[in-house]
Amino acid sequence: MTISQKEFALSCPLPIRNYPTVTLAHGGGGTLMHELIEKMFRAAFGSSDLDCAHDSTVFLPPADARLAFTTDSYVVSPVVFSGGDIGSLAVNGTVNDLAMAGAKPLYLSAGFILEEGLPMDLLWRIVLSMKAAADQAGVKIITGDTKVVDKGKADQIFINTAGVGTLLHQQNISPSSVAVGDQIIVSGDIGRHGMAIMAQRENLEFESNIESDCAPVADLVGQLLDAGLMLHCLRDLTRGGMASTLNEIAMAAKKGIQLVERLIPVREDVKGACELLGFDPLYVACEGRFVAFVPKECAQDALRVMRQHVLGASAAVIGEVVSPPTPCVTMESLIGVKRIVDMISGEQLPRIC
Amino acid sequence: MTISQKEFALSCPLPIRNYPTVTLAHGGGGTLMHELIEKMFRAAFGSSDLDCAHDSTVFLPPADARLAFTTDSYVVSPVVFSGGDIGSLAVNGTVNDLAMAGAKPLYLSAGFILEEGLPMDLLWRIVLSMKAAADQAGVKIITGDTKVVDKGKADQIFINTAGVGTLLHQQNISPSSVAVGDQIIVSGDIGRHGMAIMAQRENLEFESNIESDCAPVADLVGQLLDAGLMLHCLRDLTRGGMASTLNEIAMAAKKGIQLVERLIPVREDVKGACELLGFDPLYVACEGRFVAFVPKECAQDALRVMRQHVLGASAAVIGEVVSPPTPCVTMESLIGVKRIVDMISGEQLPRIC
Repeated sequence: MTISQKEFALSCPLPIRNYPTVTLAHGGGGTLMHELIEKMFRAAFGSSDLDCAHDSTVFLPPADARLAFTTDSYVVSPVVFSGGDIGSLAVNGTVNDLAMAGAKPLYLSAGFILEEGLPMDLLWRIVLSMKAAADQAGVKIITGDTKVVDKGKADQIFINTAGVGTLLHQQNISPSSVAVGDQIIVSGDIGRHGMAIMAQRENLEFESNIESDCAPVADLVGQLLDAGLMLHCLRDLTRGGMASTLNEIAMAAKKGIQLVERLIPVREDVKGACELLGFDPLYVACEGRFVAFVPKECAQDALRVMRQHVLGASAAVIGEVVSPPTPCVTMESLIGVKRIVDMISGEQLPRIC
Repeated sequence: MTISQKEFALSCPLPIRNYPTVTLAHGGGGTLMHELIEKMFRAAFGSSDLDCAHDSTVFLPPADARLAFTTDSYVVSPVVFSGGDIGSLAVNGTVNDLAMAGAKPLYLSAGFILEEGLPMDLLWRIVLSMKAAADQAGVKIITGDTKVVDKGKADQIFINTAGVGTLLHQQNISPSSVAVGDQIIVSGDIGRHGMAIMAQRENLEFESNIESDCAPVADLVGQLLDAGLMLHCLRDLTRGGMASTLNEIAMAAKKGIQLVERLIPVREDVKGACELLGFDPLYVACEGRFVAFVPKECAQDALRVMRQHVLGASAAVIGEVVSPPTPCVTMESLIGVKRIVDMISGEQLPRIC
């Protein structure tokens, strides 16, 4: 932000100086809650032509379209990090879950759980960040809810978003479509979101500042579909990282997955930070990266489409689907040794999203 | 529950004895999280014929139907109370928000935020309660998310549900349809949910046990619509109680609302508990009650339909819409005095839902 803290607070229609922090009454169903909803949430989100003043918001879906429905809660700590905050994460994360079904995101809901004492200007910052992310993704936040819990019973702010999108294709984009020979393309370098959070949390200063990759990939997926490309499966690389995601798909598809380590894009500063902290980039979460499983004959076209998009500039083929002895993920390492890449068993980075 | 605690725990496909409490790893995106999802959430909810194994779940909406979309987070404390728990509340509350648009609920999402250390058998109890409530309401839980936060950063369990429903009518059920002369019908006695929570929280023993009114009213609303009755506005009486709800509608509709106190159904034990604790039943939340604004000529028919339904047996006309000097709610008290009924300003009962 280039404007001062005072100017920023003044940009909020809610008189923040009167209520510098969130109180229990802001969730009580009375005048304070209505003021918060009208002068903060509706002021930021309410440019929709739909009637949102009701318990539900009514919309007419596109004719004959299949719809996708998804939800995620966000509990990331800290709530503001390099390259984003819990607000942009809550929008992009759910937009990306819709995109992974090949859906164009239409509408989001936003459910806030606020801890008593949350600074009101921090809430305003997060709300503006949600609005900016929603605009970027071409999605509207049309319904919401606010709860406040007593101090010490939450951690600043938790946000749930649910999303509805429309499928503009007739493909079955799902692990069940994955076939032997499919090429696996990753949309960009991995591990930045997780390392950005870790750096912030541990107050570490790396030589270069690692920014989260948090971004909406629905437009990029839309371009793959518009190009008429066959997509067997899409999956974003969030909790558990690429390793866990690919294991999920291998098990669901009952196929083997073979990766080549030197083909997997990881930025040098991310590699360095991972080494320093003892993480394996394969297990570190991204919030704006995905893998696409595409038939071999489509792979080069898909790669070209992805690389023309700002969010796919460093896309790369990283492996392929093989006939399984058992469904698992293997990787040819830099020194040419083949090893099994397991799903994460426990918890490497709690509260990453 | 009539079965023993041990038998109950054994009813869960997840081996609860191995993981008696929720750990951070249950939200880590790895094998433990997958086991929790497969053997608890999918075991309970996953009878759907939709492909729910993906980031999003895909469904085909009814042809040409308008859809309603809503969300609520639930943070009620305590999580188990007389007449329900946070699970049944999370299903019924969102089902009711859809019903208030005159929508037939179709699908719910479920987003869990779990505190590290939550007893696993309590989670199983809540999940089963959600399943039972969903079955009763005729709605399917088709997508979900699980996050775990470190001990002390949440309060046992928070649940968000978002809902999608379909409008089977062409009416505009909204405060903007409210007209002078409309009769206001309440679907039953008020204040039981709030007093049930209070009793549990304060460890009070009233002479008779007050059970929450928590229930899904979508079927009752469906019967009003099936009877061809004109409904101007519907609103459930949650946070802030009847007084705050009616003030919201009066302001949105720019009309006056006139109530008659002696017509408002309040159970004697609820009245007594309210007096004891210093609450006004008009401000106490319900979770299975709503008000309907109907044209005068439909009022008796609406009342008859409601009284035939188990959830509307004590329905009553409690007032009417009048030409406003200013949009506000007034009430003729038991002793014949007319007074203004304000919206609640602060917070009477935190974490009631």
